[in-house]
Formats: sequence, structure tokens, C-alpha cells
Amino acid sequence: MSTKQQWLIYLSGEIHSDWRDRIQEGLIKNGLPVTILTPVTDHSLSDDCGVSILGVEDEDYWKDHKGAMVNAIRTRTLLERSDVVVVRFGDKYRQWNAAFDAGYATAKGKPLIVLHDPVLNHALKEVDGAALAVAQTPEQVVRLMSYVIEGKL
Amino acid sequence: MSTKQQWLIYLSGEIHSDWRDRIQEGLIKNGLPVTILTPVTDHSLSDDCGVSILGVEDEDYWKDHKGAMVNAIRTRTLLERSDVVVVRFGDKYRQWNAAFDAGYATAKGKPLIVLHDPVLNHALKEVDGAALAVAQTPEQVVRLMSYVIEGKL
Amino acid sequence: MSTKQQWLIYLSGEIHSDWRDRIQEGLIKNGLPVTILTPVTDHSLSDDCGVSILGVEDEDYWKDHKGAMVNAIRTRTLLERSDVVVVRFGDKYRQWNAAFDAGYATAKGKPLIVLHDPVLNHALKEVDGAALAVAQTPEQVVRLMSYVIEGKL
Amino acid sequence: MSTKQQWLIYLSGEIHSDWRDRIQEGLIKNGLPVTILTPVTDHSLSDDCGVSILGVEDEDYWKDHKGAMVNAIRTRTLLERSDVVVVRFGDKYRQWNAAFDAGYATAKGKPLIVLHDPVLNHALKEVDGAALAVAQTPEQVVRLMSYVIEGKL
Amino acid sequence: MSTKQQWLIYLSGEIHSDWRDRIQEGLIKNGLPVTILTPVTDHSLSDDCGVSILGVEDEDYWKDHKGAMVNAIRTRTLLERSDVVVVRFGDKYRQWNAAFDAGYATAKGKPLIVLHDPVLNHALKEVDGAALAVAQTPEQVVRLMSYVIEGKL
Amino acid sequence: MSTKQQWLIYLSGEIHSDWRDRIQEGLIKNGLPVTILTPVTDHSLSDDCGVSILGVEDEDYWKDHKGAMVNAIRTRTLLERSDVVVVRFGDKYRQWNAAFDAGYATAKGKPLIVLHDPVLNHALKEVDGAALAVAQTPEQVVRLMSYVIEGKL
Amino acid sequence: MSTKQQWLIYLSGEIHSDWRDRIQEGLIKNGLPVTILTPVTDHSLSDDCGVSILGVEDEDYWKDHKGAMVNAIRTRTLLERSDVVVVRFGDKYRQWNAAFDAGYATAKGKPLIVLHDPVLNHALKEVDGAALAVAQTPEQVVRLMSYVIEGKL
Amino acid sequence: MSTKQQWLIYLSGEIHSDWRDRIQEGLIKNGLPVTILTPVTDHSLSDDCGVSILGVEDEDYWKDHKGAMVNAIRTRTLLERSDVVVVRFGDKYRQWNAAFDAGYATAKGKPLIVLHDPVLNHALKEVDGAALAVAQTPEQVVRLMSYVIEGKL
Repeated sequence: MSTKQQWLIYLSGEIHSDWRDRIQEGLIKNGLPVTILTPVTDHSLSDDCGVSILGVEDEDYWKDHKGAMVNAIRTRTLLERSDVVVVRFGDKYRQWNAAFDAGYATAKGKPLIVLHDPVLNHALKEVDGAALAVAQTPEQVVRLMSYVIEGKL
Repeated sequence: MSTKQQWLIYLSGEIHSDWRDRIQEGLIKNGLPVTILTPVTDHSLSDDCGVSILGVEDEDYWKDHKGAMVNAIRTRTLLERSDVVVVRFGDKYRQWNAAFDAGYATAKGKPLIVLHDPVLNHALKEVDGAALAVAQTPEQVVRLMSYVIEGKL
Repeated sequence: MSTKQQWLIYLSGEIHSDWRDRIQEGLIKNGLPVTILTPVTDHSLSDDCGVSILGVEDEDYWKDHKGAMVNAIRTRTLLERSDVVVVRFGDKYRQWNAAFDAGYATAKGKPLIVLHDPVLNHALKEVDGAALAVAQTPEQVVRLMSYVIEGKL
Repeated sequence: MSTKQQWLIYLSGEIHSDWRDRIQEGLIKNGLPVTILTPVTDHSLSDDCGVSILGVEDEDYWKDHKGAMVNAIRTRTLLERSDVVVVRFGDKYRQWNAAFDAGYATAKGKPLIVLHDPVLNHALKEVDGAALAVAQTPEQVVRLMSYVIEGKL
Repeated sequence: MSTKQQWLIYLSGEIHSDWRDRIQEGLIKNGLPVTILTPVTDHSLSDDCGVSILGVEDEDYWKDHKGAMVNAIRTRTLLERSDVVVVRFGDKYRQWNAAFDAGYATAKGKPLIVLHDPVLNHALKEVDGAALAVAQTPEQVVRLMSYVIEGKL
Repeated sequence: MSTKQQWLIYLSGEIHSDWRDRIQEGLIKNGLPVTILTPVTDHSLSDDCGVSILGVEDEDYWKDHKGAMVNAIRTRTLLERSDVVVVRFGDKYRQWNAAFDAGYATAKGKPLIVLHDPVLNHALKEVDGAALAVAQTPEQVVRLMSYVIEGKL
Repeated sequence: MSTKQQWLIYLSGEIHSDWRDRIQEGLIKNGLPVTILTPVTDHSLSDDCGVSILGVEDEDYWKDHKGAMVNAIRTRTLLERSDVVVVRFGDKYRQWNAAFDAGYATAKGKPLIVLHDPVLNHALKEVDGAALAVAQTPEQVVRLMSYVIEGKL
Repeated sequence: MSTKQQWLIYLSGEIHSDWRDRIQEGLIKNGLPVTILTPVTDHSLSDDCGVSILGVEDEDYWKDHKGAMVNAIRTRTLLERSDVVVVRFGDKYRQWNAAFDAGYATAKGKPLIVLHDPVLNHALKEVDGAALAVAQTPEQVVRLMSYVIEGKL
């Protein structure tokens, strides 16, 4: 009759730092019943998957298009399944797909946690405004999940 | 081929009496296949969670706001998962969050059980009107679940 | 990688004949992976549950109302969970709750099987028109589930 | 900036008494901004429409089926559009399509008004239990709409 | 090709002060294309509507129940139609129906504006947390609608 | 805390070649956590199921109708459950049911993979346009699932 | 207080015969309040729209893709708006987009009318099975709408 | 009986160039029945609206938060109403709110047109992948709407 249900969290966004690992370590260390779902985080695989599987393209645009669509099979399915969506914005690249995922999650009514440095506060104000929590470190995300699941601070 | 499915019930509302414990005891005693889901019921943790995890605030308003949002990650997720929502109104505090949860559950089409003393009947008439059962004691909630799940009176 | 998924069927309607038992026996005999869900089929329990648990009423109308609502906690939850809804119309009583369930299931997009004697064909034409199958015997319902799940005739 | 919005009400059920006319007269007399939607209420047209338009059938079952489906084009469209659904149960026939419409409207979240003599209370308890109002006369339905729209008793 | 669309706002909550009139006056003065929708705001009519139309009750509980249900025909229909929901909490009564409406609107994805004195901040933190704006005066609500519709400050 | 969730894929369309077997073999060989769901792929069973279970019909039209409806109990249930829908178009028959399933899956927001020879590209352009991937061989579908689930090329 | 509401019907499918004109003429002649919505029915415009507006493509596949997507802006929007969807199958071409639209409309709960010669009955049995009416001539569609809207045969 | 329905398009994204004006001019010149909906496009008003109406904040974060929420009352309401969503990405700023809107529109099933220079193709591949059309100039958007509404190239 425990309230310790399994939680699925989807970790969207930045793929060039170790934030997902740090969240995973923290969740394991705290013994939290959380399943982590992610996009494919290998940049070149993610870029090449479309043409590698479905055939080469002469135009970069269609290469990108094919790849984006194949990745969407994974990302939309896992995002739909998740209980909580965490979106991380780093300091490189445009990361429009991260913001896209945040908008998608919001429209689907998923609780949203945004993770970024305070320097991005103004630029991300609409995304933050749709979130239930705005964190600055992966450790805060772990603490959020610990509180949310176990009621501990 | 049994009809004894697992049921999830969310127990919202009053956090200063032992009504959740009494329901849990009754469910265990009757061997009912019910998983209880609850908000964080520690008043001060619930008030402090936002600033404790995400950083202090000078203004009480934003401290409250941060805390309410963090709690919402838990409450909305568990409320969405639940089969039945029980909302308890006690004799202290305004308990607007309890009434908010009742409205939320109603809009989501969740079967609603309201639990309160008859003295609150008039004040709660709109909330009671949205419920499938209005109980006065936790033991009645146990009997409701026993009947609903096992068809026994 | 088998397609032998578990199926949940809700058996609504007539409570004064053995049609549910015959379907259950047939499903067991065929070893079909089906979980049967039903309303409370004890007529007097079903009538008395409201006042027995939540307090007596002077007026028959409110006794009935309380009982109907308590039963709805079970019926709507199980109906929502089910994959297939079977509604049986017998030769006694008005059975408006059976037709109500058929309309409810239709609006929720649940595949509907209706079970009744041909003599009721004209009176049930709107209900039959919303069904994916109209059967005359419980054994036909078993054969339907056998075909639907295992692809065998 | 008036609150006098147009209301659409769908009048389902009994077609052998003048209850729809009495509601219409009452609404006109009170100058209420209500559009009445109904099924086709001519019994023989309603029975014959399928075969008359789409070709004769040897079997009564398929004649009924074709007719029920053609009528459903109208009834489901108008029922979906309506703000309030009124379902009338008379003293003749089984009227399972009326109960079907009540279940359909409930599942779609439409406010439901049921109209019948008290003698049917017990048989209709599940349908009444899903309603926001249970009336005994068409004039009460008019008074309900007058109160609901104009706030007058 | 103007963006000056018509807006519907539902004004829920307190019925013993002139806040609705002040909002209406402000909207008219600013020539804003807003239609105001409200519950029935006459306290005694709202209490008596059920028994007055549908027949007296011996028990206060059922009198209240009937009235709450009749009022729900109006409130849920208008709340569903509205683009924006404003909920006002005053200093009297429990106002659980106001909080219920806020929860209902939130679950339906309606933009929510909450209106109350700062002294209620802590007690309303969960309701405020679900809102897109928390105002203290009716004039602020008018300014919000003026900005939202016409982009003017 | 693995992302290796179970995936359900529904394989719709052509029933006269071995494409489903080849996908199944490939998935097994790669040890992928995929459950395959399919319609009944025995052509004559699929044609006869309606009349065999529910009674013979004189008219071919109604024989077909009964069969199509019985098959729909299975196909709609499994299609709704699936995470990904694969629709195969071969070189025989009209295969309108395959295109129907593709439209149904699209409207339900299911990720769609279409599988066909390039010679059908122009005729299938609207169906392909709704897909996240257009493959030419069953092996490509296996590689898609391998990438989508395990992030491997 | 008339039931003569405006109806929107979407006419999908075959573009090489005059069936849409015959339906339109019939509707006008009967003075029926119906707005007809259609895809772009000029075959070459429909094929070329993508590259003509958004830039040429070397590959036929991407030319088709671009065109199909641009047409989808229109077809999905109008199909969503429509009250009734009519899908016509002729004797030429594969017409998979027609079957796709039928599946899409079914999943969205739109009343579906299918229009085709009896010779296609067997091939279209799944599509017909999802329809509320199966007509053979445009004139029957007109009679259906006349009955559905005005209750006349 | 014309298909010339009114269309609502929401123009999201870049606010520092004249792209909205050019679309509006083109639509007017072509006499297209399109209503343009937009966010508030005055940068400083959009930044200040929260504190200007609802009270000043010491912290920039909360100033931004209040403003973003007030703007969301408008943007989400208009985006929900629109038939087609156009999102423009320019060469300045991060424009995460534009990508957020694209994700939101996609999750709501709105036809999406993305407008940007080819140099952004790779960075926007996930957003483009969710679109039905990717345009480079406002004039192409006008031509798209002209084709979509009137079937003219």
C-alpha cells in the first residue's frame, strides 16, 4: 500500500555535458524508483540515422529531415510515456529542439522541470514560465525527484 | 480471470488528523488491493520544499509560489494516475487546495469521494454535488472501497 | 514477441441469468488470456449499498440515488479500463442501465459487443448499430474473443 | 457584454407525446435564446430511412441496421453540438435508444437533464444518477433553462 | 485581418462585493471586445433554485444537492465556453466552490487569473500557482484584458 | 534505470508475403524488446469470421460487413495499444484497409512507418507524407527499431 | 428555435468524375443548409503545389512529399472542421489517400459516408464497416443529407 | 455552398523585422479570407507587462516570470484558436519561445509552417521535421495560404 510508485522522467536537451550522468548517479545513490528516458545522445549517430538506414540523400536538407523524423519516433514515444519532463539548456548551440520539446510537453500537460544557468533566465522566460520548477544544477533535479517521490528534503 | 484488479486511490486534503492512517489500516485489515497515493503531508516540508531545493526568496509570495509548484509535480502526477480521488475537509484552515483538487479531479472525470462532517454540508454543496459519494468517516471510505472492489457489504 | 496480450472485457447488463458464468467457463476452457470485469451482480447488495454504507434515507428516490452513485464508482472505473465491452439484454426489466453503459462505451470509443435474443432486434437497433458484433449466445461471445485474440475459428 | 449567450439543447427520447412542443412553447413564451435540436421524430420515416435511400433489404435486421446508422448521422452530430441534453422516458416501448443517448452524453461530459414520471424512478436510477437535474414535466425543463440562462425563478 | 477577436471571460467566486461590476465598467470604458459570463450571483436564488423548480425536500442536504446540480448546468457550460477564467476570493465564507472552479479550469487548460488581497497569499498558494496572473484589484483584471487583447499598457 | 523499455509495434497491411516474419526474425536476432501485434493474417479466416461465428448471410455485402466488424475488434484495440504502427503496401490488391489504418494511426498521433517499393512512391505520397519513416525493406524496419530503442546504427 | 443548423460536409476522394458537382447541385436544388468543403481537385496543381511555392526538387520523391504536405494543410484543417465526411472511390487509380482520409475521419469520430459502385464492396469492406452509410450514387448522398437535416424522405 | 471559409493563422516568433506586415499585405492584396493573430510584438511592452500591471519586482527573474505569464494568456488562447501556426526564426536572439510555440502547436495537432533562411536548416531540423511546409520568405507563406484556401498557384 506504499506510495512508492515508479516514475519515468524524460531528459531532453543538451548532449555535450555530463548532466544526465549526474542525475542518474544521484537517483541511484538515493535509491529512487525512477526510470530515465532520453533521446539518442550520440551527436553523429543522431545526425546520420536517417540516411544510414533509409538511404543517402544528395541534399543536406533532406538528410537532416530524414534523421529528424527517425529520431522523432523515439523522442515522441518516450516523451508521451514520461511522468516528468526535464529540459536542459546549455551554453552552446541554438538548442531549438530542447525548446520544442518543452512546448510539446507543456501542451501535453506533462510536469516540466527546466535546467539552466541563471545567465539564460531572460532568454528562457517563456519556457521557465511553463515549468513547475527551474533548477540550476543536476543535483537540484535529483533533490526535486527525491522530495516529489519520497517527501524528503 | 478474477475481477480483483489493483486500485489506486489518491487521498487529498486535510493533513492535521489521522484520517489517512485510519483508511490505510482499514484497507489492510480487509486485505483490499488498494495502493494509496498522497501529497506530502508534512506541513513544514511542504511549505519549505521550493526554497530549500531551488534557492531562497526574499518575498514570502515567491517562497510560497516555488513550494506550491514543486508540490504540484507530485500531486498532479499522482492524481492523474489514480482511479478514485478522496478529498477530506477538516475543521481548520481554508483548505482551498483540497477544493482545487476536487475540481481538478472532476474535470478529469475521476470518480470523487468527499469526506467531511455534516456541519460543512452547506458550504461544500458544489463539491459534494460533483462527488459519487459523500462520507463522514474514514471507515465509510474503507467500506466504500470494499464494496466497490469486492462487492461486499 | 507473441501477440498474446492480456485482454480486459467488461460484462454489463442482465444479472438474472448465468450468461457471465458461461462466458467465463468458455474463456477458461479455451485458455484465453482474458480478465473479466463486471458490475456488482447481487441485486439487493447493489440496491442497498448506498444507504448501508453512507446512511439511511427516508425517500426511496435518494436511497436509489446514493446506491446508483456508489455503483458508478466501480462501473465507470472498470468500464474505462476494459478493452472490450459486452452488454447483455435479457427478457426482464427495463435494463436502461445496460443501454446507458452501451452509449457510454460507444462515446469512449470502446469496441462494443451486444448480446440478446433476435426478438429484441428492432427495439435494440440503435444499440446494435453502435456495436462491432451482435451475438445471441454467450458461446458466440467466447468464440468472438477466441478469434479476436488467437485468430482461430 | 451580456451573459445572454445562445444555448443549444438536444431533446432525446420519447416520440409519442407532445413534450417537445410544450418545451418549445415555454421557451418561446419566455423569450429564451435556446435552439432546440432533435432526432427525426416521425416514427415511420425513422424506421424506413435506411432502405428508402440506400436500397431495400430482405432481412428486417439489416433494414433496422441501415436505418439506425442513417439516423445516427443526425443524432450524434446534433448531440455533440448541444450544450445540454434532455432525455425523456415515457410509459411505452423499451426506449433503449434514449438510455443509450444518456450514456453517450454523460461520457462526453454534457450536462444531462432527465425527464420522467416518478413511477420510473427505481428503474432509471443509474440514468438519473448521471443527471444534473431530474424533472417530471416539460414545464420544469423550461423553468430550468430559464433559471440557467437568465438567473430567474 | 484584425487581431481584435471577441474574448469570453468567466467570473467565478465571491458574490457579495461589486468586483464584477467594476470589471464590467472598466471593460466598457476601454471598449474591449469582451463578453462576461458569470454564475447566478443572487445568493438566495442560487440556494433555492433546485427545490423551487424540481420539488421541495425535507432534508437540507438534498435541498443543497439539488440546487448545486442545477447551478452546475450553467457554471460548467459557461466555464467550458470561456477563454479566460477569473476567480475571486473575498474575506467571507469558505468559498470552496471558487477553488473548485479554479481546479476545474486548470484541468481544462483554461488560462486562469486569480483575484484576492495579499493577506490570502499563503492560503491560496496552490491556486495562485496554477494561475497565469494573480491580481489584487478588479482594475488590474481590466488592465490585463486590455493588454492581452490590444497590446496596450 | 535503463531506457530499455518494452515497445509494441503494430504491423498492418499486406498479408501475402513474409515481411512480418522477416521483421520478427530481425528483432529476435537483435534481442530487441519489441512485442509484435498484427491483424489476423489468414485471408480466409479473416473473410469468414463474421458469418462463421455470428450466423450466415445471404448477401455477400453483409457477410463482408460482419467479418470486417469482427476483425475491427482486434485491429482497433491492438492499434490503440501500439507505440509504433508499421503499414506495408505490396503489389497486389487495393489494400484500402492498409491506407485506412495509416489514416487512423495518424489521427491518433501514433508514429507511423510505411513500407513499400519505390514504384509506389507517387501513389502513396499522402500516406508517406504522414509517416516518420518510409522504408523499402523489412530489414530497414528492424534497423529503425534497433536505432530507436538502443541508439545503435 | 429551428433545428435547421448549418452543416459542413467534406467531400474526399475521386477527382476525375463529376460526383462533387452532382452533390452540390442536389443540395442547392433542395435548398439545404450545407457548406461543401473539398481538397484541391485540380490534379496537376495538387501535384505541383509544393515545388511551385517552396522550390524545385531534383528527386520525384521529395517533389511528391512537399506537395502532399502542402495539400495536408488544407485537407486536415477542413476535415477537422466538417460535420460529415463523404469519401468517394472511383474505378481508377489506387486512391489510397481516400482510404487514408476515411481512417483519419473515423479516428476523429466524424460520421462517415462512403460512396462507390457495388463492384468494390469486397475490397472496401473495412472502410464500409466504419461508415454510417454506404451509397452508390451522389443522389443518394443528397437524399441522406436531406433526411439528416430536414427529416424528409 | 462555397468552400471559402475564414482561416485564422497565428504568426509566432521574430519581432524585429517586417515579416508579419509583408504577410498581411500579401493576404490583403490577394483578398484572402484570413484573420491574422499575433503575440504582442512590442518588445518592451512585452517585457514590462507583468510588473506594470501586477506590481514591481526586485528580482529580474520574477519580473520576467510575471511578464511571460501575462503574455501566455494571449499567446495560448490565440494559438489554440488558430487553424494554422506560422513560426518565424530570424538571425538574432535565441528565440526559444518561437521553438516552444512550434512544439506546443505540434502537440495540439495544428498544421505548422516554419519560416527561416536556409542557413538555419541544420539547427532547425527537428522543428522543420514537424512542419507541413518550410518557407524562406513571407511571400511564400502568402502563396501557401492562397493555394490552401483558393486552390490557386
